[in-house]
Amino acid sequence: MRTALVIGTGLVGTSAALALAGRGIHVHLADHDPASARTAAALGAGTEEPPEGPVDLAVIAVPPAHTASVLAGAMRDGAARGYLDVASVKGGPRRELEALGLDLTPYIGTHPMAGKERSGPLAATGDLFEGRPWVLTPTRDTDTEVLNLALELVAVCKAVPVVMDADAHDRAVALVSHTPQLISSMVAARLEEADETAVRLCGQGIRDVTRIAASDPRMWVEILSANPGPVADVLAGIATDLDETVRALRGLQSAEEEKRRAGTAGIEDVLRRGNAGRVRVPGKHGAGPASYEVVAVLISDRPGELARIFADAGRAGVNIEDVRIEHATGQQAGLVQLMVEPSAAAALGSALTGRGWSLRP
Amino acid sequence: MRTALVIGTGLVGTSAALALAGRGIHVHLADHDPASARTAAALGAGTEEPPEGPVDLAVIAVPPAHTASVLAGAMRDGAARGYLDVASVKGGPRRELEALGLDLTPYIGTHPMAGKERSGPLAATGDLFEGRPWVLTPTRDTDTEVLNLALELVAVCKAVPVVMDADAHDRAVALVSHTPQLISSMVAARLEEADETAVRLCGQGIRDVTRIAASDPRMWVEILSANPGPVADVLAGIATDLDETVRALRGLQSAEEEKRRAGTAGIEDVLRRGNAGRVRVPGKHGAGPASYEVVAVLISDRPGELARIFADAGRAGVNIEDVRIEHATGQQAGLVQLMVEPSAAAALGSALTGRGWSLRP
Repeated sequence: MRTALVIGTGLVGTSAALALAGRGIHVHLADHDPASARTAAALGAGTEEPPEGPVDLAVIAVPPAHTASVLAGAMRDGAARGYLDVASVKGGPRRELEALGLDLTPYIGTHPMAGKERSGPLAATGDLFEGRPWVLTPTRDTDTEVLNLALELVAVCKAVPVVMDADAHDRAVALVSHTPQLISSMVAARLEEADETAVRLCGQGIRDVTRIAASDPRMWVEILSANPGPVADVLAGIATDLDETVRALRGLQSAEEEKRRAGTAGIEDVLRRGNAGRVRVPGKHGAGPASYEVVAVLISDRPGELARIFADAGRAGVNIEDVRIEHATGQQAGLVQLMVEPSAAAALGSALTGRGWSLRP
Repeated sequence: MRTALVIGTGLVGTSAALALAGRGIHVHLADHDPASARTAAALGAGTEEPPEGPVDLAVIAVPPAHTASVLAGAMRDGAARGYLDVASVKGGPRRELEALGLDLTPYIGTHPMAGKERSGPLAATGDLFEGRPWVLTPTRDTDTEVLNLALELVAVCKAVPVVMDADAHDRAVALVSHTPQLISSMVAARLEEADETAVRLCGQGIRDVTRIAASDPRMWVEILSANPGPVADVLAGIATDLDETVRALRGLQSAEEEKRRAGTAGIEDVLRRGNAGRVRVPGKHGAGPASYEVVAVLISDRPGELARIFADAGRAGVNIEDVRIEHATGQQAGLVQLMVEPSAAAALGSALTGRGWSLRP
């Protein structure tokens, strides 16, 4: 690949452009908002000048609702040898393109699984996709040359290519991304009218469950509008579990022992299935969530305490994979949880105690 | 308070006993499992010897299902001047005691909002309750002397007393603790039968939403069995939102524009109510979730990188309140998010860039 055209210079488009430009590929930038393309160009993502002839790859990075029409326009213009989009849903745009009667052999639908809270070109970085899955949805009609152009983009962005059927992709993101967003919002919504005293009792559990409930509603309305069927199907499955759980809890209130026993079994069933599902969630490095061991260290809240811990860990040659700091509410003392490879936990523990730190069992 | 009796030397009972013993109060320990009381005594939580006469305060720290009967036994024995329990539900035990026809003036129901993944006396620490809410549920009949004994215990444990009605407490924990647990399990349960390829697409959102789905089912069956009514009520509210959301999503699939518009409005409504509820969740220091500012720094995955960051932050006199490390899957580079007081963010940013670190906007 020598030349590329990125249409849509938001977070994703500009990040891809930065990665391509960083590898010496000549990138042309376009956006319906010229200021956005200008910003991306100023960041070093390419040039605002339109290409003089067809480029090797056109990357369409506009919102899902506009993806098909922008793609169709570019294809009719003969803007490139190959075309891909990065929309977060894949079935709808493909069907729209098919309905337009276009030859789809030079097109491949893709979805990089990366993002951040902020949007727009200023939030973009050339390494946004590093190590993240980038879904490719070729069909039997997709040109091999176009698939290879897409794989080259994924490689330049240091992402991990994952080939899936377009509809399977939409069901998967409904399950692992769109449904958790809505459910988190629903749990948080219960707090809107809660007593202040009740809200004071919130702990880390509800904090984690409701973190993504702070997401931007407009962006999520757009995402969910493009994938309503698969999301509704997953939610319907949860609704069944929810109804059964409510019934089980009502059974626990019953005077009849048999109903209480059935209630207990129902509650235990959903908790155990939750255990089984949670085990499958990959950790940050792609491993299971149990792959790190925790070394817990007491600290005071003074500047420099963490520095000393990390310096001592570094001297012991131990790499800290992740950190959590637990402050007691309003207190000056805290507990630092250091996540390390299991093989390194013992060495870290003895290095820290040897330097005067107090560990928690 | 000079003397106390702790019945039930698990995590909570032993932690309270450690705090009391640490303040010179003579603590007697009892458990239906003598080995557990012996372990607690060996940790310095008190003595296994039974008291010779009534103690000042009896702390009943047994599972919810046994709380009323153990309390009744202690009260009939005249074991103490005042009695309290620490069960995670408050309405049921009180009604059981009332049904037994006991004089409840020397009793107060309480609930310290603290815990950890591990249970048993070996997991106990004298500072388990530091800064955490400790709910007290006095009635108009509760002896003031007994309320003051409970407040003294809470103060010794450095917890924050919160006075509530027993049933209001049960509704509050149903909302902020018991419901999030079940919902997290239900989202995770959807992954049990998911395709491996779909599971590979999991990101930080679903990781957070399902973290507590890893909890121990037996412990949670016990907690939920003691509070089925209020939990069922909160879940029923979520079930209504869920049904409406499924209907809104189906509307988005409709050919009729009016149905699609109603669908969009329904989705946006639940997302916005989620925003409004999430804002109310207190942060670790009891403040709102937006009270810290994030300074994001690029690091490599070598030992010592974090140490250098924290050392540099310490030299700038800035206290890091919390840390998140984002590794790209399988990659050696990462982004460290440093959470600091908003007033300190600018100073930290310039101190770090001055020392050669790359910040993210």
